[in-house]
Amino acid sequence: MAVGCSSSSTKSTGQLTEVRQGSFATIVAAPENPDNPTTPEKVELGKLLFFDPRLSSSGVISCATCHNLGLAGTDRLPTSIGHGFQRTPRNAPTVLNAAFFQNQFWDGRAQGLEEQAKGPIQAEAEMNMPADMAVERIKSIKGYHEYFEKAFPGEEDPITFDNIVKAIAAFERTLITPNDALDRYLRGDKNALSPQAIRGMETFERIGCTSCHAGPALSSGAMMKFDWGSDPGKASWTNNPQDEKFFRVQTLRNVSLTGPYFHDGSVETLEEAVTIMARVQLGYELSDQERDDIVAFLRSLVGEMPQVEVPVLPAE
Amino acid sequence: MAVGCSSSSTKSTGQLTEVRQGSFATIVAAPENPDNPTTPEKVELGKLLFFDPRLSSSGVISCATCHNLGLAGTDRLPTSIGHGFQRTPRNAPTVLNAAFFQNQFWDGRAQGLEEQAKGPIQAEAEMNMPADMAVERIKSIKGYHEYFEKAFPGEEDPITFDNIVKAIAAFERTLITPNDALDRYLRGDKNALSPQAIRGMETFERIGCTSCHAGPALSSGAMMKFDWGSDPGKASWTNNPQDEKFFRVQTLRNVSLTGPYFHDGSVETLEEAVTIMARVQLGYELSDQERDDIVAFLRSLVGEMPQVEVPVLPAE
Ligand code: HEC
Ligand code: HEC
Ligand code: HEC
Ligand code: HEC
Ligand SMILES: [Ca+2]
Ligand SMILES: [Ca+2]
Repeated sequence: MAVGCSSSSTKSTGQLTEVRQGSFATIVAAPENPDNPTTPEKVELGKLLFFDPRLSSSGVISCATCHNLGLAGTDRLPTSIGHGFQRTPRNAPTVLNAAFFQNQFWDGRAQGLEEQAKGPIQAEAEMNMPADMAVERIKSIKGYHEYFEKAFPGEEDPITFDNIVKAIAAFERTLITPNDALDRYLRGDKNALSPQAIRGMETFERIGCTSCHAGPALSSGAMMKFDWGSDPGKASWTNNPQDEKFFRVQTLRNVSLTGPYFHDGSVETLEEAVTIMARVQLGYELSDQERDDIVAFLRSLVGEMPQVEVPVLPAE
Repeated sequence: MAVGCSSSSTKSTGQLTEVRQGSFATIVAAPENPDNPTTPEKVELGKLLFFDPRLSSSGVISCATCHNLGLAGTDRLPTSIGHGFQRTPRNAPTVLNAAFFQNQFWDGRAQGLEEQAKGPIQAEAEMNMPADMAVERIKSIKGYHEYFEKAFPGEEDPITFDNIVKAIAAFERTLITPNDALDRYLRGDKNALSPQAIRGMETFERIGCTSCHAGPALSSGAMMKFDWGSDPGKASWTNNPQDEKFFRVQTLRNVSLTGPYFHDGSVETLEEAVTIMARVQLGYELSDQERDDIVAFLRSLVGEMPQVEVPVLPAE
């Protein structure tokens, strides 16, 4: 597990060992929420709910509609199509590795996955399902009762909106993508990254991408200014002019699979997104070579996708 | 494998053995189409296409949207929601065991699964994707090329509309649900059906349901008159008054999971659907006991659901 670098450290969790080296770290497991410890029963229930279109008022939209696990946890659209075929105002970020973030949504308006999940269920342009109706609908499906009792043992009345989102969040904490080429490289397999990807990684660190994109998710998780388009970002919910155009630094794991790019989905290619990031965030004009090297590095961040069987949903 | 009944016969296919007894037969494998022999490579490709929303013009609707394998191959809606959130004119029948039918759709307007699949891709209210655009879209996703080459070896230009539907049909032939309680009973496990379900089965045969609902899918597959609602059925495409209100006899496998019922999804409960069938098709008024017995029998027709992993779709 030695990576030939004095600044590296290792930490063991489960079967995988975390390796940190400079700005980089391998993916081992998503951070836990002490208020919602993961159990297999919660994950099982959360998976059902994530895939259940009956959590939407129309009965046809589930979390998986916009966060398709076959499309790297996105819908690959510039902006999503939700209830009534309405367009959402922003691009759907991936749910893969979203568990690494405290600040949720592009504008950071929710803290943690539990609070996050309350948003799309109720949002008029997404699933359009008021919280109390969601609870009522799920209660009316008797097959769910046992799942809730097992996931939340000892609770008098376990089918609540809070427990719905807790279960979904527990499932989302399993949606991580370990063992991409970077991680294998960090673990000591020096051939995992191509020479071009290694050059790209070095440029990425040298010019300062790592000031925002570091750690296991390749993101600090912080809100940072990104002056792009007309979306006010964090200021849209704080109404504080100082938050104008602040967005959560996005993960770069699987980024080659999650285009189009940025909160408005306005940029089609990874090449262009990288050029814009360097220019807007760092005032740096990349040479074509530097850009292609960084893109080669980013393309090596496709990890092992979670293997999820289409769950058989409770019928009645 | 003896079932203690002189009219029974057995036939071996794969690991399972087909048992026929009176009007009933176990599910072993879907019939093959000699023009489109199933191969693992076709099934693999067909599964990707079945789950790929990029086969729709909006990019958000796949076959799996309306034929959700977590909801017994249906959407559990009276009528489906398709492109632009339009309602389809009819209820979405299950894709589970649909491979047993030559007459496809409620009105029998397509022959076989291959021709069937051409319908929803192009239908304006479903996926709204003209055939040539579907081919172009799939061709533009380079990751698909290898899948088509493997599924249709030796073909010069394998990405065609015909091959798209051939692959989807091959996948659908794997969507069968063997080993339900009836099948286990036919194979000799006399405790598989409850005494009430056995009574129901006997009533089902005695009053004549089996004249239309027989064989492995519990359907003759024929077009039969069903005088219900205002839909002209087969006459809607033949324009022949003699076909007025003729509909394909529906499978009863998993029928307790595929409500609401009938081609217009107008009937909520299985109890009501059974009562109506007896009255309209047989001129017979069921007693409450007979009705409940038949429903108990029909509830025993939930087989083993196909285990399908959410496929990782080609990215670009
Ligand atoms: C109609 C499309 C749609 C549906 C349905 C939907 N989402 Fe989203 N999701 C989005 C969009 C768009 C965003 C970004 C919104 C924003 O940042 O303002 C988002 C953001 C997220 C995020 C934040 C990720 C991050 O990196 O900050 C998570 C997590 C998430 N969704 C999970 C879910 C879950 C769980 C469900 C179901 C309960 C769900 N989504 C349903 C479109 C959708
Ligand atoms: C000052 C902080 C900061 C720096 C430095 C930075 N980024 Fe970003 N990056 C962000 C933020 C914030 C976002 C989210 C942008 C948005 O809201 O659309 C982002 C998004 C991205 C995206 C798009 C992700 C997606 O899914 O849409 C890519 C690609 C990216 N960064 C690459 C880079 C590269 C390469 C560099 C260095 C050349 C870099 N970033 C430097 C903050 C930064
Ligand atoms: C928007 C909803 C929707 C979509 C998308 C959709 N279907 Fe359907 N499907 C239906 C409806 C509704 C019917 C019944 C139409 C009729 O009988 O007139 C149907 C009928 C069928 C049938 C006939 C089953 C039988 O027993 O006769 C099959 C098989 C089928 N669809 C497979 C598919 C496949 C494969 C795709 C994707 C290529 C697909 N469907 C896409 C709604 C949909
Ligand atoms: C003369 C032929 C015929 C007979 C006899 C018949 N059925 Fe049917 N059955 C059909 C047809 C045709 C359909 C499809 C109806 C439609 O288009 O909605 C159907 C549909 C059904 C459905 C609804 C399936 C679904 O998915 O919506 C049930 C349940 C059913 N039959 C049960 C029975 C029972 C129980 C009996 C005996 C009491 C019976 N049928 C007798 C022809 C018949
Ligand atoms: Ca994106
Ligand atoms: Ca139905």
